Amino acid sequence: MLGAIEAGGTKFVCAVGDEQGTIIDRVQIPTTLPEETIPKVIEFFRKHPVKAIGIGSFGPIDVNRESASYGNVTSTPKVGWKDYPFVQAIKDAIPLPVGFNTDVNAAALGEATFGAAKGLDSCLYITVGTGIGAGAVVQGKLLQGLSHPEMGHILIRRHEDDPYEGKCPYHKDCLEGLAAGPAIEARWGVKGDQLVDKGEVWEMEGYYIAQALMQYIVIISPKKIILGGGVMKQRQIFPIIYKHLEKMINGYVNLPPLEEYIVSPGLGDNAGITGSLMLAHEAYEDEINREATRV
Amino acid sequence: MLGAIEAGGTKFVCAVGDEQGTIIDRVQIPTTLPEETIPKVIEFFRKHPVKAIGIGSFGPIDVNRESASYGNVTSTPKVGWKDYPFVQAIKDAIPLPVGFNTDVNAAALGEATFGAAKGLDSCLYITVGTGIGAGAVVQGKLLQGLSHPEMGHILIRRHEDDPYEGKCPYHKDCLEGLAAGPAIEARWGVKGDQLVDKGEVWEMEGYYIAQALMQYIVIISPKKIILGGGVMKQRQIFPIIYKHLEKMINGYVNLPPLEEYIVSPGLGDNAGITGSLMLAHEAYEDEINREATRV
Repeated sequence: MLGAIEAGGTKFVCAVGDEQGTIIDRVQIPTTLPEETIPKVIEFFRKHPVKAIGIGSFGPIDVNRESASYGNVTSTPKVGWKDYPFVQAIKDAIPLPVGFNTDVNAAALGEATFGAAKGLDSCLYITVGTGIGAGAVVQGKLLQGLSHPEMGHILIRRHEDDPYEGKCPYHKDCLEGLAAGPAIEARWGVKGDQLVDKGEVWEMEGYYIAQALMQYIVIISPKKIILGGGVMKQRQIFPIIYKHLEKMINGYVNLPPLEEYIVSPGLGDNAGITGSLMLAHEAYEDEINREATRV
Repeated sequence: MLGAIEAGGTKFVCAVGDEQGTIIDRVQIPTTLPEETIPKVIEFFRKHPVKAIGIGSFGPIDVNRESASYGNVTSTPKVGWKDYPFVQAIKDAIPLPVGFNTDVNAAALGEATFGAAKGLDSCLYITVGTGIGAGAVVQGKLLQGLSHPEMGHILIRRHEDDPYEGKCPYHKDCLEGLAAGPAIEARWGVKGDQLVDKGEVWEMEGYYIAQALMQYIVIISPKKIILGGGVMKQRQIFPIIYKHLEKMINGYVNLPPLEEYIVSPGLGDNAGITGSLMLAHEAYEDEINREATRV
C-alpha cells in the first residue's frame, strides 16, 4: 500500500491506495500551522501499513536533491511554513521512502498515468484557482530544471477593457495577478461563482488563459493540456479559450482539434492525490534500485 | 568518424568529427534548392568514412518518429524545401543511421555537452538572428512534445516607445516579429550592426529579450541560458537584459548571478555543428542498441 499527501493552502488531503491509482482511504486536514497539521498527517499514516509516501505540495518548494534544503517549503507567505523541512518531518516520524514534488506536477503525473493524458509521455496540467500553477510531464518525466516551474507568473498582455492593476505581490499583472480567482473577485467585486452569467467576465478570463496556453504550447509543445482548479469549473470558459487561442496561434503550429487537446482533468478533483500516489510509487522503486546497486 | 549537417536558411555547414566534438574537416554549401544543395552535401560525406550523420535543421521539421512525415521539413516558406524528405534523401544516398532535430536543439545539445552548459542536464539555447528560435535540454534530453518548440513566437508586451507593427507573417508582433534582425532593420531603417552606438535600439532589444527569458525561466527553469546568433554579438545588450530581467522577476525565483546564468555560447559559432555531431553519435548508439535487441 502507498501513501499520498496533497498539501494545499487551505487543506491537506491524505490518502492510501495502490499503484493502480485506487484510493482506499482518505482524510482531509485543515492547513494551519505545521505543528498542528503535520501530527494529524502522521497519525493517519500510522494507521495504515504504507511502504512509501508521495507528497504533492503547494510551493515554492526545494525539489533539487543535491540541495541542502531539499524537501523544504521555501519562500511561502503562509505563516509557519517558510523553510519548513516537510520531507524531513515526515521521514523523522515514518522512516520510509518519500517522494516530493509540487501539487501541480503531481497532478500532471496523475493525469498522464490514469487521466486525460493516459498513455502519453507528455502533458501539461494547469490549475486556475486561488492561484495559478502548472506542472508538466516531458518525455515521461516531470519537468524540472534549476527548480520546478512557476508557470502562473508568466507575463501576459492586458485585455484592452481591463483597468485592474493586478494582484500578484511580486509582479502585479502577471497571469496569476490578472486571472486567478482573487483577481476576478477584486476586479468585479464578487466571487467568480456569482458571475456565471456575466459574459464579459469569462471573455476576459478566456483571453488571459488562451495567452498563457499560447506561450506554453510554443515553449513546451505538450501532447495534451488539462485545465483544472476552481475557476475552470466554469465550463463556459473553454470555448472562449479555443476561440482566442486559434486566433493567436494563427495556424503556425499544428494542433489536434482544440476540444480534444485542451480538456478538463480526467481524474476530476483526484488528479493531485492520485499523482501523489505515483510519487510514492516512484520513491519506492528508486529505493529498491538503490538497495540493488548497494548489494 | 561522425558526420554533421547544420542546415541553415542561407548556408549548410557539413562537417566530420569525433564524439569528443573535435571537427576534422568542414565545408560550407549555399542553401539554394534541395536538388542543388543536397547532392553537394552527399558528395562531401562520400569522401569521409562516417558511421552516422546528425542533422540540425532549420524548421519547422517533423521530429516525431511515429509520424509518416518524420524527417521532413514541413511548412517552410523556403522555395523547394516545403515537405522535403530531408532524412530520407540522405539515407537513400548514404545508408547510415541519421539523427534529426532542429538547429537550435542541436546547438543546445552541443552547449550542454561541450560548451557553456557542460556537465549540466538542463540548458536553453536561444538564437537571435534572421529569426528567433530556441532549443532546450531538459533532464538530459532534448525538449520535445507534440513537436519541437517554436519559442521565438511567444507573445510579449510592446515597449512603450515602439510603434513598429511587427514582422512575423503569422503573429505580427510576437517576439520574432519585434526583435529578430529584420525587425530591427525595418524599425530603425538600417541593419543592427550600423546601430551599435544607438542606445535606444539596444534598450528596446534588451527589454524584449528579457521578457522572453522571464517566460522561459518560469516555464522551463533552465540551469543555464545561452544567447547566440548574429544579433547577440552586440555584447552591449547583455547588461540591458540583466537589468530588465531582474526587475521583471523581482526576486520571485532564485537565480544564480545573471552574468553567470545568461551567457554567450561556449562553442561560439560551432554550437550547432558540434551538437549535430552529437546527434550523429546518438543515432549510432540507438542503432547499436536496436541491433543488440534484435540479436
